[in-house]
Amino acid sequence: MFFLFQQQIQLTEEKQEFNKRPIKAVPCSLARSISQSSIDSHSSVGSASSEDENSPRNKVQKTSKGVSDFCIKNIKQADFGRREICIAEQEMPALMVLRKKVGGEKPLAGAKVIGCTHITAQTAVLMETLSVLGAQCRWAACNIFSTQNAVAAALAEGGTAVFAWKGESEDDFWWCIDRCIGAEIWEPNVVLDDGGDLTHWLYKKYPTLFKNIRGIVEESVTGVYRLYQLSKAGKLCVPAMNVNDSVTKQKFDTLYCCKELILDGLKRTTDMMFGGKQVLVCGYGEVGKGCCAALKALGAVVYVTEVDPICALQACMDGFRVIQLSEVVQHVDVVITCTGNKHVVAREHLDRMKNGCIVCNMGHSNTEIDLASLRTEELRWERVRPQVDHIVWPDGRRIVLLAEGRLLNLSCSTVPPFVLSVTATTQALALIELYNAPEGRYKRDVYLLPKKMDEYVASLHLPGFEAHLTELTDEQTKYLGIGKHGPFKPNYYR
Amino acid sequence: MFFLFQQQIQLTEEKQEFNKRPIKAVPCSLARSISQSSIDSHSSVGSASSEDENSPRNKVQKTSKGVSDFCIKNIKQADFGRREICIAEQEMPALMVLRKKVGGEKPLAGAKVIGCTHITAQTAVLMETLSVLGAQCRWAACNIFSTQNAVAAALAEGGTAVFAWKGESEDDFWWCIDRCIGAEIWEPNVVLDDGGDLTHWLYKKYPTLFKNIRGIVEESVTGVYRLYQLSKAGKLCVPAMNVNDSVTKQKFDTLYCCKELILDGLKRTTDMMFGGKQVLVCGYGEVGKGCCAALKALGAVVYVTEVDPICALQACMDGFRVIQLSEVVQHVDVVITCTGNKHVVAREHLDRMKNGCIVCNMGHSNTEIDLASLRTEELRWERVRPQVDHIVWPDGRRIVLLAEGRLLNLSCSTVPPFVLSVTATTQALALIELYNAPEGRYKRDVYLLPKKMDEYVASLHLPGFEAHLTELTDEQTKYLGIGKHGPFKPNYYR
Amino acid sequence: MFFLFQQQIQLTEEKQEFNKRPIKAVPCSLARSISQSSIDSHSSVGSASSEDENSPRNKVQKTSKGVSDFCIKNIKQADFGRREICIAEQEMPALMVLRKKVGGEKPLAGAKVIGCTHITAQTAVLMETLSVLGAQCRWAACNIFSTQNAVAAALAEGGTAVFAWKGESEDDFWWCIDRCIGAEIWEPNVVLDDGGDLTHWLYKKYPTLFKNIRGIVEESVTGVYRLYQLSKAGKLCVPAMNVNDSVTKQKFDTLYCCKELILDGLKRTTDMMFGGKQVLVCGYGEVGKGCCAALKALGAVVYVTEVDPICALQACMDGFRVIQLSEVVQHVDVVITCTGNKHVVAREHLDRMKNGCIVCNMGHSNTEIDLASLRTEELRWERVRPQVDHIVWPDGRRIVLLAEGRLLNLSCSTVPPFVLSVTATTQALALIELYNAPEGRYKRDVYLLPKKMDEYVASLHLPGFEAHLTELTDEQTKYLGIGKHGPFKPNYYR
Amino acid sequence: MFFLFQQQIQLTEEKQEFNKRPIKAVPCSLARSISQSSIDSHSSVGSASSEDENSPRNKVQKTSKGVSDFCIKNIKQADFGRREICIAEQEMPALMVLRKKVGGEKPLAGAKVIGCTHITAQTAVLMETLSVLGAQCRWAACNIFSTQNAVAAALAEGGTAVFAWKGESEDDFWWCIDRCIGAEIWEPNVVLDDGGDLTHWLYKKYPTLFKNIRGIVEESVTGVYRLYQLSKAGKLCVPAMNVNDSVTKQKFDTLYCCKELILDGLKRTTDMMFGGKQVLVCGYGEVGKGCCAALKALGAVVYVTEVDPICALQACMDGFRVIQLSEVVQHVDVVITCTGNKHVVAREHLDRMKNGCIVCNMGHSNTEIDLASLRTEELRWERVRPQVDHIVWPDGRRIVLLAEGRLLNLSCSTVPPFVLSVTATTQALALIELYNAPEGRYKRDVYLLPKKMDEYVASLHLPGFEAHLTELTDEQTKYLGIGKHGPFKPNYYR
Repeated sequence: MFFLFQQQIQLTEEKQEFNKRPIKAVPCSLARSISQSSIDSHSSVGSASSEDENSPRNKVQKTSKGVSDFCIKNIKQADFGRREICIAEQEMPALMVLRKKVGGEKPLAGAKVIGCTHITAQTAVLMETLSVLGAQCRWAACNIFSTQNAVAAALAEGGTAVFAWKGESEDDFWWCIDRCIGAEIWEPNVVLDDGGDLTHWLYKKYPTLFKNIRGIVEESVTGVYRLYQLSKAGKLCVPAMNVNDSVTKQKFDTLYCCKELILDGLKRTTDMMFGGKQVLVCGYGEVGKGCCAALKALGAVVYVTEVDPICALQACMDGFRVIQLSEVVQHVDVVITCTGNKHVVAREHLDRMKNGCIVCNMGHSNTEIDLASLRTEELRWERVRPQVDHIVWPDGRRIVLLAEGRLLNLSCSTVPPFVLSVTATTQALALIELYNAPEGRYKRDVYLLPKKMDEYVASLHLPGFEAHLTELTDEQTKYLGIGKHGPFKPNYYR
Repeated sequence: MFFLFQQQIQLTEEKQEFNKRPIKAVPCSLARSISQSSIDSHSSVGSASSEDENSPRNKVQKTSKGVSDFCIKNIKQADFGRREICIAEQEMPALMVLRKKVGGEKPLAGAKVIGCTHITAQTAVLMETLSVLGAQCRWAACNIFSTQNAVAAALAEGGTAVFAWKGESEDDFWWCIDRCIGAEIWEPNVVLDDGGDLTHWLYKKYPTLFKNIRGIVEESVTGVYRLYQLSKAGKLCVPAMNVNDSVTKQKFDTLYCCKELILDGLKRTTDMMFGGKQVLVCGYGEVGKGCCAALKALGAVVYVTEVDPICALQACMDGFRVIQLSEVVQHVDVVITCTGNKHVVAREHLDRMKNGCIVCNMGHSNTEIDLASLRTEELRWERVRPQVDHIVWPDGRRIVLLAEGRLLNLSCSTVPPFVLSVTATTQALALIELYNAPEGRYKRDVYLLPKKMDEYVASLHLPGFEAHLTELTDEQTKYLGIGKHGPFKPNYYR
Repeated sequence: MFFLFQQQIQLTEEKQEFNKRPIKAVPCSLARSISQSSIDSHSSVGSASSEDENSPRNKVQKTSKGVSDFCIKNIKQADFGRREICIAEQEMPALMVLRKKVGGEKPLAGAKVIGCTHITAQTAVLMETLSVLGAQCRWAACNIFSTQNAVAAALAEGGTAVFAWKGESEDDFWWCIDRCIGAEIWEPNVVLDDGGDLTHWLYKKYPTLFKNIRGIVEESVTGVYRLYQLSKAGKLCVPAMNVNDSVTKQKFDTLYCCKELILDGLKRTTDMMFGGKQVLVCGYGEVGKGCCAALKALGAVVYVTEVDPICALQACMDGFRVIQLSEVVQHVDVVITCTGNKHVVAREHLDRMKNGCIVCNMGHSNTEIDLASLRTEELRWERVRPQVDHIVWPDGRRIVLLAEGRLLNLSCSTVPPFVLSVTATTQALALIELYNAPEGRYKRDVYLLPKKMDEYVASLHLPGFEAHLTELTDEQTKYLGIGKHGPFKPNYYR
Repeated sequence: MFFLFQQQIQLTEEKQEFNKRPIKAVPCSLARSISQSSIDSHSSVGSASSEDENSPRNKVQKTSKGVSDFCIKNIKQADFGRREICIAEQEMPALMVLRKKVGGEKPLAGAKVIGCTHITAQTAVLMETLSVLGAQCRWAACNIFSTQNAVAAALAEGGTAVFAWKGESEDDFWWCIDRCIGAEIWEPNVVLDDGGDLTHWLYKKYPTLFKNIRGIVEESVTGVYRLYQLSKAGKLCVPAMNVNDSVTKQKFDTLYCCKELILDGLKRTTDMMFGGKQVLVCGYGEVGKGCCAALKALGAVVYVTEVDPICALQACMDGFRVIQLSEVVQHVDVVITCTGNKHVVAREHLDRMKNGCIVCNMGHSNTEIDLASLRTEELRWERVRPQVDHIVWPDGRRIVLLAEGRLLNLSCSTVPPFVLSVTATTQALALIELYNAPEGRYKRDVYLLPKKMDEYVASLHLPGFEAHLTELTDEQTKYLGIGKHGPFKPNYYR
């Protein structure tokens, strides 16, 4: 199970990086239209699971209730998968609160949801929440490697029509999506997609289904990009909700997660002690702010590079020396990139680093460190541990490169359940909003979740902290000129 | 000198509070049109300076060079004032850098600036910077009490035509503004206002001057409000620049200053030790975030109240218990309001506080604590120190109220030169922009400083921290799709 | 009142500095035997209070109950003084708890205490606590300037035989002490001294009284030094308790107070903003640790110098660059000495500091900065504010020297009531211990307070923080091999 | 390699716990005298390495130079082992500095060292440092599982006579020690022991060797305990140095390591997010202080329990609520024990914890949590991951127990190289001291490293931080009355 999870992480990362690639990477013919993200980990995961080779497509399995409308690896793993889901439920209290709060109202009664996401314990909690809220669900995997087979078994046993297993072939992938849509036996009316493959398949094979579909909820950067392209081209047939850019997700995903994951990623890969280490953080945006705060708190001496004077001034006021990379690169013990920029750490910098300097990336792509410049003959690469390479200069000097310059937080750490919870809750609310919105509220365009729902997502996470909100009095709402239940801030406020 | 400065602070505060008042407070007839902010400290400052009673208007004074186009208290104080200005120059390095950087280009050559601001060592640095950049300046005070006489003397001796002294009458106030405009002897072409009185006078008496005026730079909330009203009414004759809401000012004014001033304000008034104290901070916006961070760092146990779930969730993630006021009010040692809301601390809360509890306000008005509810017969007020009242309940219990619920940071601390520097630099750049903008760039409307200039203000403050910006390479600017010298972030980014 | 308090602070400081002087400074003849600390502020406090010149010694005053066994400035100030005492009581909850806890047992019943300390609202709480515990008290001032007259009045009115006023002559000083001893009318049996003058007088004039005296409690470094000298010389007639070196006092006095006072001292004198400032702290002992922690938390970039490699390594692990003064002295904005050493900041360093650099001392004497080297002809000193001098180099460069190199925490800030409370509680417990100790427990030697009583002092301060101690179970005390009520740590543990 | 290392960790832990057991555990007959620590991981490590079963004792191997005085698994692994040693050298710069500083002087010239420690890359750096300093070394393993075979190969290839492999039998264990002593071919003159088994064997079989042995350096708590027992019984034949209790080791091992390892241990086992979590830390000694500081910095709300009022007061001043366990146990998300006490968390507390509460131990033994009380029929234990058990109450509530209550920092994290470096450096200096001490400096007793050498160990670690010590001037050493090169603090100072 742990192994599976590790894989999922890696996949997620690859996908994000993919999303940064230029447009031409988007496939054009059907045969090649499986998204890059769906298979991206193929080469990097050498130790592919070697369970039995009998394809699930050839097996007939039944749940304990005799249902067989699903296709997974092995229904017998359901108990084990259920335990994983139970654990995940504890990590995602917001969805559990949502079940309690609006479960009675069944806001998704009548909803026929088709979904295409990673299939893990956490997404299982989302699917089963949708069911509690009244929806019927059919589900496929958005990645051929990331499915947790036991979880899929538990979902099937629990009544979700799930079509997914770890290690699908490309043909399997589309077959599963097709079965998930289930056009012969029902008509979906809402779509929850992560990566755009399901949406793509609908467009290609079942365009007529869109007349009954009230909207698409899309989670990934790639998928959102595709939707905006469709919208721009006037080809978007239904409203779509961009969940990726909701305030709550962005705010917590960047600052708070990076703050914790930088420590975790460095520790798991290098066992380094933070106290007294000189660390250079390139970029003082949200990611950089999180990294700097955590490292400072643990006793590192942190330097910052910035191109934007406003962020630079913030770094100063927060107690960090703002310098140019070349000024300190020969002294520091660790270099971390968080810029979203390209070739921030270039060969000339790497040439001057001291022996044992650790180099890693927390930014938005794997371009921040100029890796190509290190793929030269005179340098020797040694893989010393998983995700850890030593690059050895002719004079014996070693640079420690983590995750080959890919995202440290995703490659060498674990996405915290809290973030998954925020995302899943936002997806659920987006679905409810799209499904229940009165005719005309949403056009054939891409929307952000309304501020008020963002606030609601946040409010659902407060009980997990035993946090108690204060309610405005009538006098106060009048004084402030806002509603008693929000939105409390303007839409642009972040 | 110190005393004067204290007064200025208080005035600033009063003004801000005034700005929150409803529109009807804005005066309508000329006789009453001196702005409330110009006289606001009158009653509260009992110990008015009792220097000689001979009005400056009746005196003829000359600088050492024989110039007499000014009207101040006593030209002989020039040396002392000059020293104060020298000290202030060190606190405002950005303006000094600006002098060096663009002083040679004389971007204000030909500019005839009339200004109406507080006249202090810090604003003197601004005025003299404008001169170095090529401008001629005439200046009046925007408040009848806040003028530092020695500084005014030094300015006059240095060649600025200044008309101001501490303790002007209302008649003096308008007389000084009128002399500053100096319509008989020159024609101003740019306006720098703080509070709107100068602009008001121009509208009333010299509307024809506007044909030569390229724009108004306005610093205060009140003044900005007036300008927006004029604009809405279609009566704004020239472009205006709203300096108050520039990113740089807002960002640093709130978070960083409040972070430091909450400690200073509490310490100066009560000598309390922070370690181990239980503190309740109402509101987790920028001000609340600053207060909480500082108090936590000094060892206080901090609780937060919030109405907005997103801010509440941030408070949780930052390590603060989010509770309702009534849950802990009987246990805490200090209550600080930072909500911008009304009656956040009500009589029912005050009734339950423990003996010796300190109550103060860091928010945007003096309405956050329900003071009226404390002005009742059964409670005894004792002034134990300046800005510190004990309110004594019939059972002997005492609440310690600071600054009568007005802004602690302004009443019991000192606005840091750094903030004044950011503001003054922004004013200078706004003047340059308006004065040099090509015909048509600005219409008769109210504008925010362009993002790029905000970034420039920040960049001018970096040398003071020995901070070194990184410059983008050509490859990187192309990759990011932004200019080499910014703007680095979209306008809406904060 | 505030003015008086300021003076006391200054005196305290002078005294501490005095204590560092070599032995020969200790006076030898009676005529000169008033301790240096008792008059030390004389020259520095120019603005001596000019109340009426009629000596209290010539006045006959009576309390409302007709008592006249006291000698103070003006009994009519009693009400005002009582309010100050009431406020102080809130700041010293430990003594109030002590009153409640053991007040009923009257552990000082029969004790006749003579005391010689500063006479302030805080020491008044101590005296009245002793009374509640059963003691009779007679009191004199240990410094001719530090007496708060109103407090003395309130004490007299309350029944304490107090002999002290602000501005005593040297003759007055000894007269008051003599009256306090009150040999004609009673026989003291315990002594509470602060500075050793009372002890000195007893030795000189009333050696026979020692036969009834159970011991001396001494608070000051000077006084303790004298006692150790007496002990060494075999001349100590009674047991003495060294309160100055108790764990609780040392631990909290240094780390926690310095942590808060460095911020306060810098802010009150210079209004500087801490964010982004580069600060050099010389010495990483307890004082340095406190200063560094506070400044780092407020956003300063802090460098440390050290001579001891163990402390240096701690500084590294805590996230501070350890460098030599000469490496960064030309870049930093503030230099703070906390070494206990001599001439740590020398003229050669001062010559290289940048314009506007602030220099101050938090260490144990005024020798850390080589001030003599600055008293040369080519440098100009300008006093710009109280406690703030600009030292101007021939090229116009200015160094900002605070408190003339004396202790910033004492000169430019306020000793927090919390520290005064710890000290006073320790004094009270030491008195109880000495008074009640069985014959033979204490010889004619100088003792530290037993660990267990140190722990008791700490425990009395916990309710003020609403802190709840855990009690060991019988099983646990057995496992750990310690008593249920302590001592919990060995004597040497700090 | 990684797997081996994990094992070593576990062993270390078991050993420490062993050390707390009562005296009777100390073996008495030779047959049983292998120390418990030497085999302790046997049962817990099920997946024993199943390399080839041919015992190294039967193989004849030669280094590339033809040497065969060693016995290890496989000399061909030398290259791989050398790389591990190279990496370790970077983590232990102090030893490398020591090589450079005193390597030329050969302070161990003539020293014949026999050693018995874990054989890992880190201890290899120690051994080879001793060689560089002039010593000849023979080495055996102190634990039958912890040897890194490749490292042993590299040591042998490098010229160290090493007798050790992973998975020794008990008979192998003593055979290796015997060969290490090598009595037939040389006479050792210094002993470096970790656990006391080597010393034990010398006492039993080669007591006459002691006449040439200048001393024993002992690292472990167990070994030190045995030495003190021998000393007390008058049976210690040579001086011994207690390295375990040196200031440097204790100071950094507790505070700084625990500060980092609590985060790592929790993250690796549970992936929990720290922000907003309510954490209860039992005990505010050095370990507790480290845990609290780290968790607070990462955004947790931390509560403290204490029995000692002085530590409790420190917790207050540092900003932590001090409460009793029972007050908050039902609200917290994590409970961490750091008391050194017994049954701090009892069944009654566990019964009241909320679902999903994490319980772990950072203290000095596995007795802090009353585990026996959880081994009852009504509770179900589920192992969900390595080191993570869910204990399920009849009502379905789950408690998450980490490392079965053993030391989290050792079980679920990695001892940082920095700590190993401090220890190894101290061992090297202790050897040098004992070997070079003039006759009579050390008697047949157990000694702590002199303060000055402690300071030297610290100083050797400073270059790794690019820290620059300040040297006292002659004037200053005179003023302070200490030597120019220390010791800078009294021996008792910690």
